[in-house]
Amino acid sequence: MISREDCLQLDRRWPFAETRRGFDLPEGLIYLDGNSLGPVLHGTADHLADVVAGEWRSGLIRSWNPLPGGGGDWIGLARRVGDRIAPLIGAGPGEVHVGDSTSVSLFKTMAAAARMRPDRHVILIEEGTFPTDAYIASGLSGLTGLEVRFFTGDPVRAIGDDVALVSLTHVDFRTGRAFDMAEVTAAAHRVGALVQWDLCHSVGAIDVDVSAADFAVGCTYKYLNGGPGSPAFIWVRRDHLPAVHQPITGWMGHAAPFEMTLEHTPAAGIARMASGTPPILALSALEHALTAFEGLSMSDVRAASLSLTELFMALLDEQGFDVVTPRSSARGSQVSFRHPHAYGIVQALIGRGVIGDYRADPSAGTDRDGIARFGFAPLYISHADVWDAAEQLRAVMRQEEYADPAYSSRNAVT
Amino acid sequence: MISREDCLQLDRRWPFAETRRGFDLPEGLIYLDGNSLGPVLHGTADHLADVVAGEWRSGLIRSWNPLPGGGGDWIGLARRVGDRIAPLIGAGPGEVHVGDSTSVSLFKTMAAAARMRPDRHVILIEEGTFPTDAYIASGLSGLTGLEVRFFTGDPVRAIGDDVALVSLTHVDFRTGRAFDMAEVTAAAHRVGALVQWDLCHSVGAIDVDVSAADFAVGCTYKYLNGGPGSPAFIWVRRDHLPAVHQPITGWMGHAAPFEMTLEHTPAAGIARMASGTPPILALSALEHALTAFEGLSMSDVRAASLSLTELFMALLDEQGFDVVTPRSSARGSQVSFRHPHAYGIVQALIGRGVIGDYRADPSAGTDRDGIARFGFAPLYISHADVWDAAEQLRAVMRQEEYADPAYSSRNAVT
Repeated sequence: MISREDCLQLDRRWPFAETRRGFDLPEGLIYLDGNSLGPVLHGTADHLADVVAGEWRSGLIRSWNPLPGGGGDWIGLARRVGDRIAPLIGAGPGEVHVGDSTSVSLFKTMAAAARMRPDRHVILIEEGTFPTDAYIASGLSGLTGLEVRFFTGDPVRAIGDDVALVSLTHVDFRTGRAFDMAEVTAAAHRVGALVQWDLCHSVGAIDVDVSAADFAVGCTYKYLNGGPGSPAFIWVRRDHLPAVHQPITGWMGHAAPFEMTLEHTPAAGIARMASGTPPILALSALEHALTAFEGLSMSDVRAASLSLTELFMALLDEQGFDVVTPRSSARGSQVSFRHPHAYGIVQALIGRGVIGDYRADPSAGTDRDGIARFGFAPLYISHADVWDAAEQLRAVMRQEEYADPAYSSRNAVT
Repeated sequence: MISREDCLQLDRRWPFAETRRGFDLPEGLIYLDGNSLGPVLHGTADHLADVVAGEWRSGLIRSWNPLPGGGGDWIGLARRVGDRIAPLIGAGPGEVHVGDSTSVSLFKTMAAAARMRPDRHVILIEEGTFPTDAYIASGLSGLTGLEVRFFTGDPVRAIGDDVALVSLTHVDFRTGRAFDMAEVTAAAHRVGALVQWDLCHSVGAIDVDVSAADFAVGCTYKYLNGGPGSPAFIWVRRDHLPAVHQPITGWMGHAAPFEMTLEHTPAAGIARMASGTPPILALSALEHALTAFEGLSMSDVRAASLSLTELFMALLDEQGFDVVTPRSSARGSQVSFRHPHAYGIVQALIGRGVIGDYRADPSAGTDRDGIARFGFAPLYISHADVWDAAEQLRAVMRQEEYADPAYSSRNAVT
C-alpha cells in the first residue's frame, strides 16, 4: 500500500512547487480536469484590465500598431503568442499561428493538406478520435468529395497509398494512449501521405516534437491554461509553406491586408493560415497564461507527468479498477478507467471536491458504461494531490455514493 | 456657416446623452473611428474580472453548466449574446449565432447557401466589397469550383439566373453608400437567387431589417463595441434552417456534442452554424458591451445617424471637400472624402486628437489618392463633436499639416 508519506517524498523531487504557486487554485479542491479546462493564473484579471484600460480604452484603434509607451501591436499578437507555444512542441519562432477554434483550424489544415496531394482522395482518421476531428473531415468531404476513412488499431498498417492525409490525435481523449509521433509520421511519409497531429490532449503536459510532421493543431485552453474557448494554434512545416493554400482566405492571411486589393495574395509565412481578425482579449489572456511555461524544461514536465500518472494507476490498482490507460510510457498525462457507474462516480467525486470528468463511450453500447477520466497537469498537480484524490475515490466506492440519485441527473455539459 | 451653437441646439434633440456617459471615452479625443473599433464601456474590466474570478477560477469546468449561485452557463452564452443582437437587425430570439470571426462566418454561410442551389454556380459580389468577402468567396471557389463574379453599379441588374448567392455589404466601407436591402433581396428572390448581407458597417449604427433576406453576417467590434476582434454573428432565415448545411461541422454545432458519436448530426436550430468551442472571455466582453443598446430604439439611432452625417457633410461642403458619401438617406453612419493627401490629413487629425481613418482605394490608381473616412456612432458622438472635428480639419488644411513628414510614414495598420 502506497502511503501519503511516500507521495510527499515524491513531491520533494517534483520541480514545479514554485510554478504551482502561480496558479489561482480554489482552496479545498483537487482539480484533475486541466485536460478539459486549465485553471487561471494569478494576475489574469489584472492583465486583462491593463489591456482594456491601456490598449482598448486609451489606444483605441491605434493599438493595432505598437503604442509609443509600449503595449499595443495587436497585429503582432497572434505571432507573439505562437512564439511562446513553439518551444512546447519542438517548433521554431514564426512557425505557429494562433487565432481560430480547434475545429476551424483543423478544417484549414485538412483542406490545405488534401490540396497538396491532388492525386489522392482519402483522409485517414482513427475511430476513437476526438469527435470534432471526424466531424470536420466529414464536413470537408461534403464540400470536396474527399473520402474519410476510419481505422482502428495500428495506424502504420492502415496507411494505404491512396491516403492524402493521416490525421491523428496524439493522445486519445478517452484512454490517454499516445501514439509515437516519429514512428507514425515516418510510416506515412514512406507511402507519400502527409501527417497532421492533433495535439489538444498532449501540448503542455508531455513533450512533443512536431519537427518531422507536416501539420499540427492544438488547443490552448487545456494544459496551456489559456481560458475557456481560448483560440487554437496551427503549426505548418516551414518548407511546406509556399505550397500551403488553406481555403478560409480572410484578410488577415493576406500578404498586405491594408492594401485592400480585390485579389487574395497569401502572406509568405505562417500568417497565411490566418483568416479573420483575431480575438484580442482572448489572445491576451492566453499570452499571460503562457508565462507559466517560461524557463520550464519540457522533459521535466514529461517526467513529472509519467510519475503522477504512474502513481494514480498504482492507487487505482489497489482498489481494483479497470484502468484503460497504457502502462507503458505510450500515454499522455491522464488516467482513465471504465466502470458501469462511471458517471455517478465522477459526480460523487466532484461533490467531494475532486474534479475529474466523464466521457461517454458509444462503442460500449450504453452511454452509462463510460469512462471516468482524470488529468494530471504537471505544473500544478502534486503527488500528494494524487493520493488525496484516490482516498476520496475510495470513500465514494466504499459508501456507494455513485448510486445517490443526486448524482444521476445529467448536466448539459458532462 | 454652421455655428457651434447650432450644433449644441441639435444636441438638445439628440437622445443619447445618457447612453454616451456609459462609454469610457478618453478625455480630449473625438473618436470618429467606431466604424473600425468601438470604444469600451465603463465596467468592462470589472465584468471580465467577475468572469475570471467567479466562473473561470472558482467554477472551473463546471461553469459550462449554470452555476448554483448564478453565472456560468457558458454553453448558452453564444445564444444569449445572439439574442441581444437579434433586435438590432430585425431578427427574433434564437435566430442569431455568435462565435467565429467575420471571415470564418462568411465562409460558412457562403458554402451553405451555394449548397442550397446545386444547379447554379455563381456567387455574385460587388467589386467595391470589403476585401475579406471577396477573398472568402475566392477561397471557397478554389475548393468547390464555384465561380465568383464581380459587378459594379446596380446589383439588381447584375443578378442573372445562374446566380446561387448574391453576397453584398449593406454599407460600403469606403464611401458609406447603403443598399436598399428589401429591394435588392426581392430582386434576387425573383430570379431564384439567395441573398446574404454583410452588416459589418451597418449593425448598431443604422436600422437593419434582415427579415426578408436569407443569410446575414456581421461584425461586433465596430458599432457594437464588443472589443478588438470580438466574434462575429450569423443570422439565418428560420425556415431555411433544416436545409442549411455549413461545412465546418465542429462539435459545437452537433445536436448532442457530449454524446461523442462519430457521425455529425447538425443541431436543429441556429446552433448548427457553430463549429468549435467559442471564446468565452471575448463573448463575455461583448455581452457586456451590448447592454448599451438595452431599451434604445433603432429608429432613434438611425435618425441621429442621419443628423450627424448630414451635419458633417455640410461642414465639409463649407471647406470644399470631395465628399463621396451619398447625400440621400441611402448611406450608413460614416462620411468619406477623397483627397490626394487623404493619408496625411488623417494622420494630422489624429495628431490633433480627432481619430478617423484612411482607406486605400486601389481603383484610384495610386494608394496615396485614397479615402479619409469618419464614422459617427450615434450612441456616443454628439453634434458638437462633429463641429469640433470639422474645426480641427479646417486647421489641418489651413496650415497644410498633412504635408508634415511626420505624417507620411506608414503604420503597419493604417
